[in-house]
Amino acid sequence: MEDSSRYDLPDSPRSVGWTAAEHCVVADAASPFLTESGAVLPYVEVEYETYGTPAADGNNCVLVCHALSGDAHAAGWDAHWERDNRPWRKDRPGWWDNVIGPGKGIDTNRWFVICSNVLGGCYGTTGPASVNPETGRPYGLEFPVVTVGDWVRIQKRLLEKLGITHLYAVIGGSLGGQQTLEWALAYPDFMDKAVILASADKLSPQGLAFNTVGRHSIMSDPHFCGGDYYGKEKPDKGLAMARMLANITYLSEESFHDKFGREFQYTENPAYNFQIEYKVESYLNHQGLSFVHRFDANSYLYITKAMDYYDAAAQWGGGNPAEALRRIKAELLLVSFKTDWLYTPEQSLEIAKVAAGLGRPVNYVLVNSRKGHDGFLLETEAVSRILGAFLNREAADEPASE
Amino acid sequence: MEDSSRYDLPDSPRSVGWTAAEHCVVADAASPFLTESGAVLPYVEVEYETYGTPAADGNNCVLVCHALSGDAHAAGWDAHWERDNRPWRKDRPGWWDNVIGPGKGIDTNRWFVICSNVLGGCYGTTGPASVNPETGRPYGLEFPVVTVGDWVRIQKRLLEKLGITHLYAVIGGSLGGQQTLEWALAYPDFMDKAVILASADKLSPQGLAFNTVGRHSIMSDPHFCGGDYYGKEKPDKGLAMARMLANITYLSEESFHDKFGREFQYTENPAYNFQIEYKVESYLNHQGLSFVHRFDANSYLYITKAMDYYDAAAQWGGGNPAEALRRIKAELLLVSFKTDWLYTPEQSLEIAKVAAGLGRPVNYVLVNSRKGHDGFLLETEAVSRILGAFLNREAADEPASE
Repeated sequence: MEDSSRYDLPDSPRSVGWTAAEHCVVADAASPFLTESGAVLPYVEVEYETYGTPAADGNNCVLVCHALSGDAHAAGWDAHWERDNRPWRKDRPGWWDNVIGPGKGIDTNRWFVICSNVLGGCYGTTGPASVNPETGRPYGLEFPVVTVGDWVRIQKRLLEKLGITHLYAVIGGSLGGQQTLEWALAYPDFMDKAVILASADKLSPQGLAFNTVGRHSIMSDPHFCGGDYYGKEKPDKGLAMARMLANITYLSEESFHDKFGREFQYTENPAYNFQIEYKVESYLNHQGLSFVHRFDANSYLYITKAMDYYDAAAQWGGGNPAEALRRIKAELLLVSFKTDWLYTPEQSLEIAKVAAGLGRPVNYVLVNSRKGHDGFLLETEAVSRILGAFLNREAADEPASE
Repeated sequence: MEDSSRYDLPDSPRSVGWTAAEHCVVADAASPFLTESGAVLPYVEVEYETYGTPAADGNNCVLVCHALSGDAHAAGWDAHWERDNRPWRKDRPGWWDNVIGPGKGIDTNRWFVICSNVLGGCYGTTGPASVNPETGRPYGLEFPVVTVGDWVRIQKRLLEKLGITHLYAVIGGSLGGQQTLEWALAYPDFMDKAVILASADKLSPQGLAFNTVGRHSIMSDPHFCGGDYYGKEKPDKGLAMARMLANITYLSEESFHDKFGREFQYTENPAYNFQIEYKVESYLNHQGLSFVHRFDANSYLYITKAMDYYDAAAQWGGGNPAEALRRIKAELLLVSFKTDWLYTPEQSLEIAKVAAGLGRPVNYVLVNSRKGHDGFLLETEAVSRILGAFLNREAADEPASE
């Protein structure tokens, strides 16, 4: 539904241009990765992209964390979409292309930006579709359940491999915002700033409900076969349904009105059958169908489960948010979107209040958007302006980071 | 999750006692039923129940309309649950038992109450599981798509057969509220009062979205077989998922917190697998599993489609709500529930405002409930009190109905 013409083309001075993903081995026989769940991963490879140029003093690094269905390709145009069989990248740039680039909110003339695909994902980082070295076959559900904490520790390993010892900022929206919060809690000295957009310290019970129905849909698909479907027919119907459902939570009541209303897609009169009829049905159906071409159903299970489990206060404060947030040293910016009902403005504001109560430097911005949770991806003008102001302001006071 | 001990047992003076459904043929070869979609149904039988005693002058009749998964068994204890193979009725009375009965909101000492199962349903009224007289086999998807208007016209035929020429009131919640509104629009002289609870003149685009994902789930089930699954394995998984999903919309963010929070069902610590783990997952799973034993997937398709199509302003006012509501002569009572996000308080209030602007007698009550859309079924004390006051008040001014 988005207008692709508003993207900067690869040769635009505002685009980071053509990008090529890189890969880094962060766990191997000499240094396996122990997951929070207690499993050992003998080999982990991470796909990542970078934009901009690292400063000589290394003080300009910004880590961007992606959300549920995102990937390392946050900006620019994938030069290898054809070689890597990722045709959906042909006609559109990275998922935050309007926010990351020369002169944009995360200004690549100034910042060196890193974005990596999460552990358990399906975009180049080791996950359930990867070959299990112990069996020679894809992991499937033998892949260990991973957590937001695991993702952050894997990202930390990646940064170490890249020789990055300090981040100017960590930034992320939605599930990426939870990674950002986890970064600030787990490695409080590692960054100056943390920007959490459209996120919360934990998912609401209603959010748990949506995720469980989505997983149920995938696991009920007769082609799921206990997750062992690689090389065979995939549980596409189950995954498409999970995506359709999740998409409802990304929009808002208002954006449903704005985008579709109760209009029919094809005719003016009711068809009196069970085919797709309303515009909103057509939209959701398209979202489901296109998703299965670019996402692995098992990764959907793993990533939503990590989303379910994340609870910053439980993990770091024995259930007490203030005890947890006390750890944070980074200056916080919380950005929420007025009609977001998946991670509500109230949840962001609560984090801001608790942090402020602890005397921590914290900023809170409410974007007056009708676009629901997807606001962090769609309200790029506002997000760019807010990020630009926050990243540039403090830096100006700190000669060290110039 | 509800406490069954709060039900009045069959021999309680506040219970309507044991009930026995009745059946009435409302369409046959001599008077077939023409649906709004243009199809002809050569035979329609309606299952209904009645409570209380008709007054000699016939002026005490109240029609109660059920919601999506409801039935004609609105109150009391089904005497024939075993014979009719409806075991889910063994341990609980009708769906509005706390509202309908001697001394309750709809006081059966005073009112003669009728409730019938909708056309296309699966509780004794002709529907997709019924035998198509033209083929000798169950209709399946050959059953015509039906509408709220069809339901009301079928109910009208039923009342005619029963010799009822006037209703004191029509009452319904959710989809039953839309039937009530349709009654007031289609037959404005037929009733004195109309009570519309937790409903609206049309479903929101977000509501359309939830319904389409639910239907998609059923129709994607490999056992669906184009609706021709009778006598074979049923599309239980698809129907269970549709129900799980719909259940989310019946609760509220608040009631998810109140009922489940983020608590685990069995253990204190994460299991790190994809089994049911959170209380909310267990609840939804149970809702899905128990639903498939008592509901027909095809009926779910037909009833949600009727829900999608209903648009009072389009049907009766060329798209203009005031033009439509101008038809109404009954005194209206709109009852909404503060945390209902399926049919929002704003939607009910809008009907009330437009009707009031037309000089129509209209009452609006907002129940300060945390229980979401299900408030009309669960807030029985408030609902009973509100209905009792509304039904009894006016009647006291009208000697004719005594």
